[in-house]
Amino acid sequence: MSATVDSQRARLREVDAPQSLVVRFPETSPLKLDAGVDLTNLSVAYQTYGALNSQKSNAVLICHALTGDQHVANIHPLTGKPGWWSTMVGPGKPFDTERFFVICANVVGGCMGTTGPASTNPMTGKPYGLELPIVTIRDMVRAQAKLIDHLGIDQLFCVAGGSMGGMQVLQWAASYPERVFSAVPIATGARHSSQNIAFHEVGRQAIMADPDWRDGRYFDEGVRPFKGLAVARMAAHITYLSDEALQQKFGRKLQNRAAPTFSFDADFQIESYLRHQGSAFVERFDANSYLYMTRAMDYFDLAGDYGGKLRAAFLKTKSRFCVVSFTSDWLFPTSDSRAIVHALNASGASVSFVEIETEKGHDAFLLDLPELIATTTGFIDSAARARGIA
Amino acid sequence: MSATVDSQRARLREVDAPQSLVVRFPETSPLKLDAGVDLTNLSVAYQTYGALNSQKSNAVLICHALTGDQHVANIHPLTGKPGWWSTMVGPGKPFDTERFFVICANVVGGCMGTTGPASTNPMTGKPYGLELPIVTIRDMVRAQAKLIDHLGIDQLFCVAGGSMGGMQVLQWAASYPERVFSAVPIATGARHSSQNIAFHEVGRQAIMADPDWRDGRYFDEGVRPFKGLAVARMAAHITYLSDEALQQKFGRKLQNRAAPTFSFDADFQIESYLRHQGSAFVERFDANSYLYMTRAMDYFDLAGDYGGKLRAAFLKTKSRFCVVSFTSDWLFPTSDSRAIVHALNASGASVSFVEIETEKGHDAFLLDLPELIATTTGFIDSAARARGIA
Repeated sequence: MSATVDSQRARLREVDAPQSLVVRFPETSPLKLDAGVDLTNLSVAYQTYGALNSQKSNAVLICHALTGDQHVANIHPLTGKPGWWSTMVGPGKPFDTERFFVICANVVGGCMGTTGPASTNPMTGKPYGLELPIVTIRDMVRAQAKLIDHLGIDQLFCVAGGSMGGMQVLQWAASYPERVFSAVPIATGARHSSQNIAFHEVGRQAIMADPDWRDGRYFDEGVRPFKGLAVARMAAHITYLSDEALQQKFGRKLQNRAAPTFSFDADFQIESYLRHQGSAFVERFDANSYLYMTRAMDYFDLAGDYGGKLRAAFLKTKSRFCVVSFTSDWLFPTSDSRAIVHALNASGASVSFVEIETEKGHDAFLLDLPELIATTTGFIDSAARARGIA
Repeated sequence: MSATVDSQRARLREVDAPQSLVVRFPETSPLKLDAGVDLTNLSVAYQTYGALNSQKSNAVLICHALTGDQHVANIHPLTGKPGWWSTMVGPGKPFDTERFFVICANVVGGCMGTTGPASTNPMTGKPYGLELPIVTIRDMVRAQAKLIDHLGIDQLFCVAGGSMGGMQVLQWAASYPERVFSAVPIATGARHSSQNIAFHEVGRQAIMADPDWRDGRYFDEGVRPFKGLAVARMAAHITYLSDEALQQKFGRKLQNRAAPTFSFDADFQIESYLRHQGSAFVERFDANSYLYMTRAMDYFDLAGDYGGKLRAAFLKTKSRFCVVSFTSDWLFPTSDSRAIVHALNASGASVSFVEIETEKGHDAFLLDLPELIATTTGFIDSAARARGIA
């Protein structure tokens, strides 16, 4: 659970002065939130890759997941690791940066430069903390639309993303039917299930139970709820992997020892792995942002905005869809993707659906899976031809 | 997360002076632990129901699960609720107390009167805390065997239990092949999976992250790690239910409100339910005991004691087995039960196996399920005839 002073300074710097492109929207251009209030002084931090063509027809928006960020295909400024989707975005990759202008923005509520609970509230000069209104998936998409407007792009060639990113893809297609030529929602659902809300609630309670959380004002008080956030991450991480993957990777193998210690040490490799996941996470993520991101996912119920009928959400869409699920994903099981596909079919949309056989669980969308690469490449190539992109 | 002063006094009283029968073994009769040390001054708290017959052939041992206790079929002295298996144990129930002498003992490491981390260490006059050696499933069974010896019973007519109780059933059959006439392991496994260890580790880390845990010495310091224990319980509770059960019972229904509050309140019924599970649990259970119980389950790998061959564990058994699993149990899925059945078949044991179709998840073993009642009744009746019990 150690977090070095240097890493914490770097973490804090990213919030208000990110190592990214940033648009700072004027007070006259607030973000209207589902919570019923306006968020003024919105900043959106983003990365781009490749070049926009003269017709502005080759823009791809990548939407990141719960703990992701805009660093989709470059070395991450805090962790020094490759971008989270460098398997999918880059020269010769499915989202080929020699062909497409790829954009990825940190979502509102995040902690990598777009306005979030760690950002300085211009009204107080202190971090927002819980004074930031709750944000929704639709709010994230509204903020992205403002960025796309700012970039002068009318229509995105493609919006793609996995998990919470996939929710944004679906919201884009519903909210801006004219602005999305193609859509790739991966390992996602049109609403968050009861079990998923339950896991999120456990994570939030773990953070809020940490006395260093201080009702969200930890920055003011010079502390950080590292232990609570690490526990939240550990619990969530289990849901990202499948039972089978854990069994194959770790089983009951012991960590650097021949026999159990008969103690509460991390005897098993899986324990050591989870503890590492927890302690690495707190170095790069903000606890309040974790609360906001999980809440946004919990609140997501696309059909709810359309009289409970999911197909109604897609009635105006002109996008072509490629829906992808993974057999061993129990966080967003294939049944969630099927519900999306049924609604798209019922609304008359063009949709292809691939369930990929893998034991890797939900995290499969982040991995270098040949079938995921092939599926996406095929779909994108075909859509690019239809859109007249060279 | 409130726990009243009165409830806490009652809780503490149960540890050293339980409202149960108690055997206090003399110093000359220590419990030999797998950790390689002797536990002296062992107390075992237990309940009995019905009467032992003159041949002493009608004794049934019920083994309780992680957070269960000896109050299997009477009103619980702390919660005022019916016993945890009153659907299965009582007059006219599968374990008919007009026919059988039913025994249930709190396991070693527990917190309801059998020696555990909350018990007073006679060497120091203070609660053991983490000075209690780690206990294993085999240690629990050894302590039960001492109780059975004390009661003058050579052979148990049946040993039965679910989850961690089922692990004890399997251990009984392996350790004391002559002393178990029949065995009913329900919703259990012969070893704890990587995913199950992972969930337990999250729970332990949640407890240990609570500053009121105080390295296990919270009683000495007049505090209790209620928040950490509640988070641990919440996380575990999700694993006891199925995705489908949660969806059916709670779905995305809101709790006493018409619209989301756009806050971190318990908007959803599932959140409110989980918070209640957490806060009710800390009233009746000891945090250190939770650490010990989860560790015992993690360490359980019956085949490990027999050269990695599960069938070898059962080579000497003369018991007849009734193995039960539930279709929607993802904590101990049917594949775990199948592995037990295959090993029993390979060892030539008599075994019947029933997979019960239910959406109730792991917790199904605690519920009033007609198919569970019918299966157990049929098996027990047949075994009783074979044993010559009227």
